[in-house]
Amino acid sequence: MKTRIAILGYGNLGRGAEAAIARNDDLELVAVFTRRDPSALKLRTPGVPVYSVEKAPELRDAIDVLLLCGGSATDLPVQTPEYAAMFNVVDSFDTHAKIPDHFAAVDAAARAAGKVGLISCGWDPGMFSLARVYAGAVLPQGKDETFWGRGVSQGHSDAIRRIEGVLDARQYTVPIPAALEAVRRGEQPELTARQKHLRECYVVTADGADKARIEREIKTMPYYFDEYDTTVTFISAEEMARDHAGLPHGGSVLRSGVTGWEGEHKHTIEFSLKLDSNPEFTGSVLAACARAVHRMYREGMTGCKTILDIPPAYLSPRTGEDLRAHLL
Amino acid sequence: MKTRIAILGYGNLGRGAEAAIARNDDLELVAVFTRRDPSALKLRTPGVPVYSVEKAPELRDAIDVLLLCGGSATDLPVQTPEYAAMFNVVDSFDTHAKIPDHFAAVDAAARAAGKVGLISCGWDPGMFSLARVYAGAVLPQGKDETFWGRGVSQGHSDAIRRIEGVLDARQYTVPIPAALEAVRRGEQPELTARQKHLRECYVVTADGADKARIEREIKTMPYYFDEYDTTVTFISAEEMARDHAGLPHGGSVLRSGVTGWEGEHKHTIEFSLKLDSNPEFTGSVLAACARAVHRMYREGMTGCKTILDIPPAYLSPRTGEDLRAHLL
Repeated sequence: MKTRIAILGYGNLGRGAEAAIARNDDLELVAVFTRRDPSALKLRTPGVPVYSVEKAPELRDAIDVLLLCGGSATDLPVQTPEYAAMFNVVDSFDTHAKIPDHFAAVDAAARAAGKVGLISCGWDPGMFSLARVYAGAVLPQGKDETFWGRGVSQGHSDAIRRIEGVLDARQYTVPIPAALEAVRRGEQPELTARQKHLRECYVVTADGADKARIEREIKTMPYYFDEYDTTVTFISAEEMARDHAGLPHGGSVLRSGVTGWEGEHKHTIEFSLKLDSNPEFTGSVLAACARAVHRMYREGMTGCKTILDIPPAYLSPRTGEDLRAHLL
Repeated sequence: MKTRIAILGYGNLGRGAEAAIARNDDLELVAVFTRRDPSALKLRTPGVPVYSVEKAPELRDAIDVLLLCGGSATDLPVQTPEYAAMFNVVDSFDTHAKIPDHFAAVDAAARAAGKVGLISCGWDPGMFSLARVYAGAVLPQGKDETFWGRGVSQGHSDAIRRIEGVLDARQYTVPIPAALEAVRRGEQPELTARQKHLRECYVVTADGADKARIEREIKTMPYYFDEYDTTVTFISAEEMARDHAGLPHGGSVLRSGVTGWEGEHKHTIEFSLKLDSNPEFTGSVLAACARAVHRMYREGMTGCKTILDIPPAYLSPRTGEDLRAHLL
């Protein structure tokens, strides 16, 4: 019996999740819900219906897990609690500072409904969180560092697009090799934001736009750019389409810590990702999490969970016996 | 209330576990059991008694978790089922091929006694197993590679020591950079044992020993060395003590896989360890696992478990709330 999955929101992440579901024999896409006109959506999976989101409640018995593929800024804070009252849900809510509030809202809704709501699973939060928790549990005396990139930050790209005269923009977050290597060597350096990452911006402007002003506005933008060394390169729309169509990303979580009676032995734990497609990889994490949520629900669990609450074996389609024999 | 831990076996691993317990405020070492004369052991932790192993059954109510720190070849296959009938136990059984049998024996004993027996937790099996299972769940179409080292292999060092005329030996397993880099680039090369690792041997011989014969015997030893490029360097006992006293180790688990409808996007997941002290790091994993086992036991679980069955949060001393707010 396959896990019947539906997707709400058919943007980059929704399409990535669709592709991931197709790569797992025990998972099955049964519906896509959209806030747009359903007839305007063309899915890649043959035979799967697209519905207006209003229709979701009627289909609750035909869906084991609903993947919420909207954005963290405005969609998920509303959608995840709302749908956790009807479905087992999985989201990739990634506003780290607001996770406790989001957890509380989803927990209340899911508990009342006897459902499981898994939040904040992708790669950060998600896989990177796992790396931080395992490393911290094993090396209680140590220091964590996370480097992101080289990859496209959608938030920073959007921030540039809001500047007057900008038609399109792509921002790459780039870890600085010297900083990464110092952390890898276990030196536990104190690093500023500027010492850890560069920000590379590629910008398409409207005809006659004041490029000097745009560059200045980018480089001085508070929080997004002012604490970093930022490069701005103006390119044509053709160059943007040709050279910057992908959404690569990745990064590394490192912990260096000590053991021994005098802290005389150093250890470094590193978890790294190099991703050609951020939305397809995140969608792949959501798909594995949907499998786990379905199992947790069948075992009678309810309420809000995170990936830190899931036994690793639950994410895999393989049996415990098979995992012990071949992957342990 | 601290988790009361006892250690059985006070070799390198037992001492590493003792040092790790001292670094965790919620864990407490309450006894060490030995098959040697207890009066011959001097612990580092003040006030902790050393008992003959025969005394363990009498102390079962004073111990929450027993760490079994013997060897995988002959100790653990007997000890872990035996003690799982009386205690919650944790071992680092690392003979991958025999894990299913070991699991079955421990499961039967622990279930009958209402205890939890956690087997095969260290870094491989253990942390590396986690990396393999997570990566495989997220990227079902892909290829795993594990590289070990640079580090001391105790098994290979012991094998050299059994050769006539050898007084002492240290064998370093060394990953070959070109192979590691090809895997990191996602090329999924087919690699032989020889292409992945070198074996570096440092050997102290008895006066007048036939070094040419010893070198030949090492390099042609089936399974241990014959499938590898091996270097043999003869050194003095003083050089051995000065340059090779440590037990460093480490390695990398990599999975490269694809997503997208045509498999057009490549992704590489890497988990790496760089360890100054293999036994202290392994002991640190055992300590974190003891915490999780105690919690699983209090929640009513029984039987044999592996690290693949443990929700990650259970390994941490921090609350779920704290983890969500700061590490997720």
